[in-house]
Amino acid sequence: MFRLSFILNIRPSSRQIIYSSRFTHSIYPLTIREVYDKKPLNQSINLIGYLLNARKLKTHYFLDLFDGSLTNNQKHLQVVASFNNHPDLPHLTYGCSINVQGKFVQSNHPKQEFELQAETISLINSSDASNYPFKPNAEQTLLMLRKDEHLRLRSPLAQVVFRLRSQLMFSLYEYFYKHNFVQIQTPCLTRNDCEGGGETFRIQPYKSHKTQAEKEYFNDQVYLTVSGQLHLETAANGFGRAYTLNPAFRADKNLSRFHLAEFWMLEVEVAGTYNYLNFVCFTKLDQLLNAYIDLLRTLAIDIYSKCSEEFKYLIKNNIQSTHIDRFLQQNDYPRISYEEAVNYLRNSVDFHNFPDDGDFTRAHENYLCQTIMNNQAFFIINYPKKLKPFYMSINDDDATVANFDFIFPSIGELSGGSLREHRFENLKLRLDEFDLTHDLQWYLDLRRFGGMPTGGFGLGIERFLMAITGIDNVRDVILFPRYYQHCDG
Amino acid sequence: MFRLSFILNIRPSSRQIIYSSRFTHSIYPLTIREVYDKKPLNQSINLIGYLLNARKLKTHYFLDLFDGSLTNNQKHLQVVASFNNHPDLPHLTYGCSINVQGKFVQSNHPKQEFELQAETISLINSSDASNYPFKPNAEQTLLMLRKDEHLRLRSPLAQVVFRLRSQLMFSLYEYFYKHNFVQIQTPCLTRNDCEGGGETFRIQPYKSHKTQAEKEYFNDQVYLTVSGQLHLETAANGFGRAYTLNPAFRADKNLSRFHLAEFWMLEVEVAGTYNYLNFVCFTKLDQLLNAYIDLLRTLAIDIYSKCSEEFKYLIKNNIQSTHIDRFLQQNDYPRISYEEAVNYLRNSVDFHNFPDDGDFTRAHENYLCQTIMNNQAFFIINYPKKLKPFYMSINDDDATVANFDFIFPSIGELSGGSLREHRFENLKLRLDEFDLTHDLQWYLDLRRFGGMPTGGFGLGIERFLMAITGIDNVRDVILFPRYYQHCDG
Repeated sequence: MFRLSFILNIRPSSRQIIYSSRFTHSIYPLTIREVYDKKPLNQSINLIGYLLNARKLKTHYFLDLFDGSLTNNQKHLQVVASFNNHPDLPHLTYGCSINVQGKFVQSNHPKQEFELQAETISLINSSDASNYPFKPNAEQTLLMLRKDEHLRLRSPLAQVVFRLRSQLMFSLYEYFYKHNFVQIQTPCLTRNDCEGGGETFRIQPYKSHKTQAEKEYFNDQVYLTVSGQLHLETAANGFGRAYTLNPAFRADKNLSRFHLAEFWMLEVEVAGTYNYLNFVCFTKLDQLLNAYIDLLRTLAIDIYSKCSEEFKYLIKNNIQSTHIDRFLQQNDYPRISYEEAVNYLRNSVDFHNFPDDGDFTRAHENYLCQTIMNNQAFFIINYPKKLKPFYMSINDDDATVANFDFIFPSIGELSGGSLREHRFENLKLRLDEFDLTHDLQWYLDLRRFGGMPTGGFGLGIERFLMAITGIDNVRDVILFPRYYQHCDG
Repeated sequence: MFRLSFILNIRPSSRQIIYSSRFTHSIYPLTIREVYDKKPLNQSINLIGYLLNARKLKTHYFLDLFDGSLTNNQKHLQVVASFNNHPDLPHLTYGCSINVQGKFVQSNHPKQEFELQAETISLINSSDASNYPFKPNAEQTLLMLRKDEHLRLRSPLAQVVFRLRSQLMFSLYEYFYKHNFVQIQTPCLTRNDCEGGGETFRIQPYKSHKTQAEKEYFNDQVYLTVSGQLHLETAANGFGRAYTLNPAFRADKNLSRFHLAEFWMLEVEVAGTYNYLNFVCFTKLDQLLNAYIDLLRTLAIDIYSKCSEEFKYLIKNNIQSTHIDRFLQQNDYPRISYEEAVNYLRNSVDFHNFPDDGDFTRAHENYLCQTIMNNQAFFIINYPKKLKPFYMSINDDDATVANFDFIFPSIGELSGGSLREHRFENLKLRLDEFDLTHDLQWYLDLRRFGGMPTGGFGLGIERFLMAITGIDNVRDVILFPRYYQHCDG
């Protein structure tokens, strides 16, 4: 067991002196990051953090203090504490939390510029080091960390992943804010199953032990949403540009490295000029694809510029997206139609029996991506209408819809999107076909009273994180993953 | 019925000319807002929008085009179209959507600076004006709009409300980004009921008609979260500063103007130096309150500066928060203890029988706020431990906890927060008391392995919106409200 055995209460100074030389910081408690940023040289400061390492050299201890505030997780603050024979010397263990009060000074040591000369060090919580899953100097892998979801943010590797996730979220907010989108919170609880026939969760009020029977809370069956798109369209019709960044839920009993029962999804919906006049205009599917590519590229550039330390750290841990250059540099991706994709499959050895109007499985997407597309990301557009939901706009051929799937190497479908059927009569026919006219009267209403042509897409946050980082399991990029037979905490 | 009866296809111009003089805009379809921003004078542009008004004067029609892109919803774009006897003249109705192509020019009319000289106007979707709930020039109220949740974003009044909401969200993201917080998405699906005994929703996979019995999807009972706090604490222990802005769910059968079954909640959790050394430091409750006040004030200032048009519009519609000046100016609010609050109640006529360790109802809060606090917002701190959950830090008196409720005039409890019990032994005792040690082993683990002292609070997004706008019903500030017996769409 790792044990440090030492230190406390060196040179207790008078409170007056400490107060008067105290460094004023933000309204929040001081962090190591803030100390490095503002460099309050020769001032007395107070920090808390975890003890990660300690070395004894002659008359002093050298401690690595870590508080999770630094982007570069390797940059601890070195605390220097002269030894004395304090009678209550505690036995500090790896990972314990301590409170250090001392002076921030220039360091004489060549390895670091600054150090904290401790005046008092006190233990906050000791650490049960023999059972602590993270060992000093032991290599950590995402797979190992996954076993301790609730503790993994104590690990620098997981910290890097979730800092990237946090930056991704903010980059998204900023992108849409700058483009004058209105952010909407679409509901999680819904009477409507947008995709028609997906696996959903039903909700009911918890039956307490006291009551034998509990009436329904709502007047109707209510589900957890699989997509906020239909609700979002009410906002696109109002504001022209709207997005939502919400949880979504699927009850698929799928244990693959891509599937979650609860995940986060960006959904974007934009109104635009319709192609009446044959201008270059948004609701031509290509324009939607251009907007989508612009988003991916802007996000990638933003995240890369702001998280370069994090990406270096991942690479050092052998995690690297081999496809990220595309996001950063490419202004376009190949666009093939469903029909072309089917022809490619039928010309192959493995899939020459591909049926008419068949849906693509992951195996088909992989073949197309690896063999036909030379392992590049690409779009498949214009699927047969019978494979897709009622809301997609039917093309002039009356056989296909104006939609896209974006297929990414080693991930598969990263996004799907389409132009929406905005013509009242056409939408009514489609709803009738699916026997949804009664349930979705409100959605049809959007077209009954004017209604703009809109198009949009969804982007799974976790899959996008996998794509830009190269992390290959979705359970590593969401803090408390929920999937079949797994809901810890 | 309102009917406009006119117009189409004036001076069809050659496509070449239109293309060559086309104004290049952002990757998204052009909006009226962008046109006003960039003023592409004498250039040919293409816009879609709703027709809100039309006047015929001599040889021309004057149309008000509205596309929802403008912050100031009164600023439509005036479209000028010379009359001609086009044989296919459609009958355009109030609220129909049209596509206008024409030249953006300086206007001669004193009432507006610019106008769009239409070359072609085409109908996208007509509007069933007799059934359209929003009538031209009719006054709209939030109560009326609530009847048509799915259409209300077509109304300027609702647009103003949801623009404010969107701005609030972004102001929050920005505040925490600037303060180096990490944003976490805590799960909606959880085995844990943080508040202990609140009304919760249980989930189960939807039973399809095909299968008679469906096994549980998870291995255990799973609920919709009532708070992400416990999960968020794992992040505060890792990063020091973390927040979440997530949906939360309560199954209360409460039809009051404050209650929703699904609402959005900001939760903030910050690690900080503990009060061992008697310094001025975060985990003294006062410091947590200071941080909370700083947040409210920063948000209010930011939203006010960015949405002045929206606030003017609300005031014009007789909606105004009479307490907002406090948010903007006040650096502090009165802080009274639970004990003091009880004494005030017992000295009153109505509540002189208030019991020992009794919990406050809305009536009590109202009395304290209106009569004792002169209708000011205020804090009640240090509640008896028996009234509060296990995770709150017990004060030295061993009778009260270091918590706060923030009471806002006409809203009631706007926020609650506390220091958390970070000492392993103390927390274990509390969990044992509540018989939660087995279920919350993971939460206890946070203290078993070091663990920092943290404090935090929650802020209901909808209630905060009510507080800053003066809107008095929570159903008006969330797009698709869910409450007892109500889940539309």
